[in-house]
Amino acid sequence: MTSFVFRRQLIIEWSHCDPAGIVFNPRFFEFFDTSTWLLFGAAVGVTVEQIASTFDIVGVPLVDVRAEFHRPARFGDTIEIASHVSEFRRSSLDVTHRTTVGGDLAVEAVETRVWAERDKSDPEKLKAVPIPTAVIAKFG
Amino acid sequence: MTSFVFRRQLIIEWSHCDPAGIVFNPRFFEFFDTSTWLLFGAAVGVTVEQIASTFDIVGVPLVDVRAEFHRPARFGDTIEIASHVSEFRRSSLDVTHRTTVGGDLAVEAVETRVWAERDKSDPEKLKAVPIPTAVIAKFG
Amino acid sequence: MTSFVFRRQLIIEWSHCDPAGIVFNPRFFEFFDTSTWLLFGAAVGVTVEQIASTFDIVGVPLVDVRAEFHRPARFGDTIEIASHVSEFRRSSLDVTHRTTVGGDLAVEAVETRVWAERDKSDPEKLKAVPIPTAVIAKFG
Amino acid sequence: MTSFVFRRQLIIEWSHCDPAGIVFNPRFFEFFDTSTWLLFGAAVGVTVEQIASTFDIVGVPLVDVRAEFHRPARFGDTIEIASHVSEFRRSSLDVTHRTTVGGDLAVEAVETRVWAERDKSDPEKLKAVPIPTAVIAKFG
Repeated sequence: MTSFVFRRQLIIEWSHCDPAGIVFNPRFFEFFDTSTWLLFGAAVGVTVEQIASTFDIVGVPLVDVRAEFHRPARFGDTIEIASHVSEFRRSSLDVTHRTTVGGDLAVEAVETRVWAERDKSDPEKLKAVPIPTAVIAKFG
Repeated sequence: MTSFVFRRQLIIEWSHCDPAGIVFNPRFFEFFDTSTWLLFGAAVGVTVEQIASTFDIVGVPLVDVRAEFHRPARFGDTIEIASHVSEFRRSSLDVTHRTTVGGDLAVEAVETRVWAERDKSDPEKLKAVPIPTAVIAKFG
Repeated sequence: MTSFVFRRQLIIEWSHCDPAGIVFNPRFFEFFDTSTWLLFGAAVGVTVEQIASTFDIVGVPLVDVRAEFHRPARFGDTIEIASHVSEFRRSSLDVTHRTTVGGDLAVEAVETRVWAERDKSDPEKLKAVPIPTAVIAKFG
Repeated sequence: MTSFVFRRQLIIEWSHCDPAGIVFNPRFFEFFDTSTWLLFGAAVGVTVEQIASTFDIVGVPLVDVRAEFHRPARFGDTIEIASHVSEFRRSSLDVTHRTTVGGDLAVEAVETRVWAERDKSDPEKLKAVPIPTAVIAKFG
């Protein structure tokens, strides 16, 4: 587990909510995707749109995600998402997103992502490649 | 595992895709949510908007989901989502969604949902209640 | 006004609706975007993902849209969207989308789009170019 | 035209962008919807989730919108949305949203919304009612 944590607060919008008046679950996966970009940008010290070009990767595509929904978030709630890399492996990594509402755990998710470049022999395909040690070092 | 399977086909839209030209992962959770509604409606024999009132529940809110992304789906691809209840428990159930593109597995997800009614003592709260055996019987 | 009309029916999903239980207005613009792609594909006789490469364009980006909301659509409603090109100009065109619920007009929108290719001198930029007469002819 | 202007800045996310790498147009209507809620909350001095109950209305549903897209916004761009009520009428109002990227106009939209309460004789229906003068006064 790395020590660099990226936190952000969001106010839940009307646009996020479903007819039950709570955040529609797919919205959380949008929030987590954005938090992962912001976590990497903040740890590495580049803006989000520079990440791919800086490391000559296509991105860090998602291969697995697990989320537990403990309590709903409602229109007007302030949520906090705290994100960190919970494990680095050779060419993949886990990002844990802990979402709280008023200090109470609302949603906890773990994303598994791969460090991927475009396959030189077939640009339509992606290929997992080793994560640079310099990148891992940035996460503490 | 129950035997009733709900299948539907979707053509991937521009609206579903991200700058990498593939379906943005949160969209799959929208697809799965809709498939769960359609699976229940089809199994039980009511339209989706009648499910809650028919059984005097608020819905079947998501409490846990796990998804594995095996290959991307692209703009114009036809995907098939085959959904079934993989397990019924007392007041919760698992729905498995198997998504294929051209016959190849693209995304497999398991949602855990609860059969929930509004708490009489606090209408802001939901309460998990036993799933009627008549409902379970419909899934074969 | 051209005579080729593309019609499709949609059942309104939980995912489309807001806390008021009606379709959240931005969803209609997703529906219209998809209908425009489908209208062009159907008129011209190619699949949606072939449109750009067939005509060596980037797409038909939106430059102006106007929508009037006459009545809401609700979870479970079947809506029909009838789309046609209401005017072709040299390098731009108008697409009108008429959305009905149970035969009643719900939303009417007119999109103005341009026929755009990538600027050879600056690939980051788009350039409006004349719409081929062969394309216009396909719309009757 | 009223003098109260609500401004906010957003960094464009991967989640907002389409395969052309620019903000997918329906996302702007989500941004504008949220800005309208925030504009009203800020002008009137309540949080967004208190607006409906404070004034005993259902909300301010959209009846008409017109948007002009002058230039795209891209992943990582900082956009600013400046929103104000451009006209109050008896029971409807116009909200103008001016979106800039690096100071350049990107999207300008005018929403027409109605001040709506639930129809006492048919709670499924909404009814436009006069906007309180005390509300109008808050906008300067």
